[in-house]
Amino acid sequence: MRVEILCTGDEILTGKTVNTNYSHMARRLGEVGLDVIWGTTVGDDRASLLAAFARAGERADAVIVNGGLGPTVDDLSQEVAAEACGVKLELSDYWMQRMAESYARRGRVMPANNKKQAMLPEGAEFIDNPIGTACGFAVTIGKARFFFTPGVPREMRRMLDEQVIPRLLKLGGITGVTRLKRFHSFGIGESRADEMLAGIPGLAIDGEIKLGFQAHFPELETKLAARGATEAELSAKLSAIEAEVRRRLGNFVVAEDEGSLERVVVEKLKAGGHTLAIGETFTSGAIASRLAPLPGAEAVFCKGVIATDIAADKLRTESGASHALAVLMQLDPGSDRPDFGATITVQIADGGGMVQRVARLVGGRDWVRTGATELGLDCLRRHLLGLPVDERIDFERR
Amino acid sequence: MRVEILCTGDEILTGKTVNTNYSHMARRLGEVGLDVIWGTTVGDDRASLLAAFARAGERADAVIVNGGLGPTVDDLSQEVAAEACGVKLELSDYWMQRMAESYARRGRVMPANNKKQAMLPEGAEFIDNPIGTACGFAVTIGKARFFFTPGVPREMRRMLDEQVIPRLLKLGGITGVTRLKRFHSFGIGESRADEMLAGIPGLAIDGEIKLGFQAHFPELETKLAARGATEAELSAKLSAIEAEVRRRLGNFVVAEDEGSLERVVVEKLKAGGHTLAIGETFTSGAIASRLAPLPGAEAVFCKGVIATDIAADKLRTESGASHALAVLMQLDPGSDRPDFGATITVQIADGGGMVQRVARLVGGRDWVRTGATELGLDCLRRHLLGLPVDERIDFERR
Repeated sequence: MRVEILCTGDEILTGKTVNTNYSHMARRLGEVGLDVIWGTTVGDDRASLLAAFARAGERADAVIVNGGLGPTVDDLSQEVAAEACGVKLELSDYWMQRMAESYARRGRVMPANNKKQAMLPEGAEFIDNPIGTACGFAVTIGKARFFFTPGVPREMRRMLDEQVIPRLLKLGGITGVTRLKRFHSFGIGESRADEMLAGIPGLAIDGEIKLGFQAHFPELETKLAARGATEAELSAKLSAIEAEVRRRLGNFVVAEDEGSLERVVVEKLKAGGHTLAIGETFTSGAIASRLAPLPGAEAVFCKGVIATDIAADKLRTESGASHALAVLMQLDPGSDRPDFGATITVQIADGGGMVQRVARLVGGRDWVRTGATELGLDCLRRHLLGLPVDERIDFERR
Repeated sequence: MRVEILCTGDEILTGKTVNTNYSHMARRLGEVGLDVIWGTTVGDDRASLLAAFARAGERADAVIVNGGLGPTVDDLSQEVAAEACGVKLELSDYWMQRMAESYARRGRVMPANNKKQAMLPEGAEFIDNPIGTACGFAVTIGKARFFFTPGVPREMRRMLDEQVIPRLLKLGGITGVTRLKRFHSFGIGESRADEMLAGIPGLAIDGEIKLGFQAHFPELETKLAARGATEAELSAKLSAIEAEVRRRLGNFVVAEDEGSLERVVVEKLKAGGHTLAIGETFTSGAIASRLAPLPGAEAVFCKGVIATDIAADKLRTESGASHALAVLMQLDPGSDRPDFGATITVQIADGGGMVQRVARLVGGRDWVRTGATELGLDCLRRHLLGLPVDERIDFERR
């Protein structure tokens, strides 16, 4: 099935807003096995919208339109959709009532211009928006089914997952259920991860489980997008492959799914009844600021110190924490440049003594700072889990 | 003149990479008075590229194509451009030699597949890339002039500014010089800034100076995009308007052009021979990590402390710094939500005593944390410059 995405709005067209709605939609569709083949961006302009709808209706089987459903005069999606279909707009009494109720619940009166958001092309299929006033709708233009979605990211994301994707799968005759399994790792690059995961049985044989990567330096996300007839069948098929991915990526996996490195560290400290002090130099608070604001961290995080003369054992004693993490950095001399590097010393002190890990990272000031932050937190994770802290990482120079 | 942007590549089409090249190009073109009217995204697919070139060639006067100039087989831009023009590819001896020289300078041998990057459509106009192996080129398809640019962001940005924009301006018969003046402010929202700057003479009368805003919470960027016949005429015209914008935005302007709030603070401390200690609670190192990594900050930044029991005067005495900034936060109880807020107390101590500023911010945990970081740094800037630290900001609740 040929799917297109059509983004509307002057803020996107002029580059004032970076189009993260597009990348989110395309990624989500790819994860459920729907490949996007074309993307279009036009402004809040009647002629451009009409032309874009006509073109997409000639090429695609399905088109997701994003934006232009707001209450103001520059939002034109419903109007132009009606024109493209050769029909009039008609009031959805149902949506008017839903909007009025929503305002009433918050003790407010609905502004008159919200009525515009309940005007849909005659014969359009209504698509629910449980968290906003811009309802979605679907119409057919040319040979394609068009799904209209709101520009507000959280409204779009929910409508996409709950309303649009199920309709697209049905339209494409794609049955069954899908799931996305994610592994977050630190220390391996995309090409090495690809090698490490080569030839996993089931990944190769059954085309319904798709492997993908997404690098967010310094972490790498490894994704398994899977499809099955039922949840039970999907779980059965996926569990062995998940276990194999976990085994092969080994100690480099810092978290899975919604988890994160810093959450794992906080939870592990909490579970052990531990407390933590953090000492930093050139990372200048970046380590503490990833960990301390987490819900629950207040029970664990004692103190942070940013200075040049830090040692984990001394910090532990002085702060009264059960554990101390110190990340010291010796920067290369000279100004910032692509081969600017630093020697990083990570120290972890607990009642039992002190562990130390030294690594050299190269890649410019910001790169080195981000890498040292992650390295420090990862060494602490490894220490708390009883894993080796000195396993070589891909970003390291000898 | 009708300008389009056509982005190519599977990474962009599938959403794996967020398309920041598009937003950069559209913004830069807008700043020099060239408005983008249509954006297209297609993958590394011959048929889609050919169709996209044909469509854009029917609609536009000029098209910037981004990506697909690499040395690998999936990079198809030159090939498809030649096909769309009905011509063959021919080797650019000049570019082959330039690439070979560049490899030789680094003591390396040029890989054979780089030759592909010197194959241009017959009759194409060569466009220089001084920092990469993907040269650009221009051809005419349909009624539009197409400019092909590399996907690597820093190569694209430089080629856009130095090579493509001058050609586009010439093509559109737009003469003279352009300049972009930027003001960074904290404490005023976009709509209030728009009101504050209403009716500036010259902005209204002469359409050649365009006012625009870009919000990067918590800062707002106010931009003056100006055009003139010569640099001298441009400066003369712009200087009075710049001064008026500066006067109206007043103490809220934290920096201009390439400057930043944290740079201003570091420079001002340095100029006064001062040193600084920073104490934070819920911002957890975010304040220190904006300031301490700056070049030159090592001479100024003494120490950072993240703890709950902080007071600026005590921190100053203990650290031995001449100045201390403490940002304390009392968070609302309960979990994160859109109306989650905090009461922020900023304290600044120097030899002369202590200044204090209390503000309440609301908007969720992350929002409040980012706002408190900026507020703390801005109070310090104001104190160092002798400005009032308690001027009300738009984000503040009473």
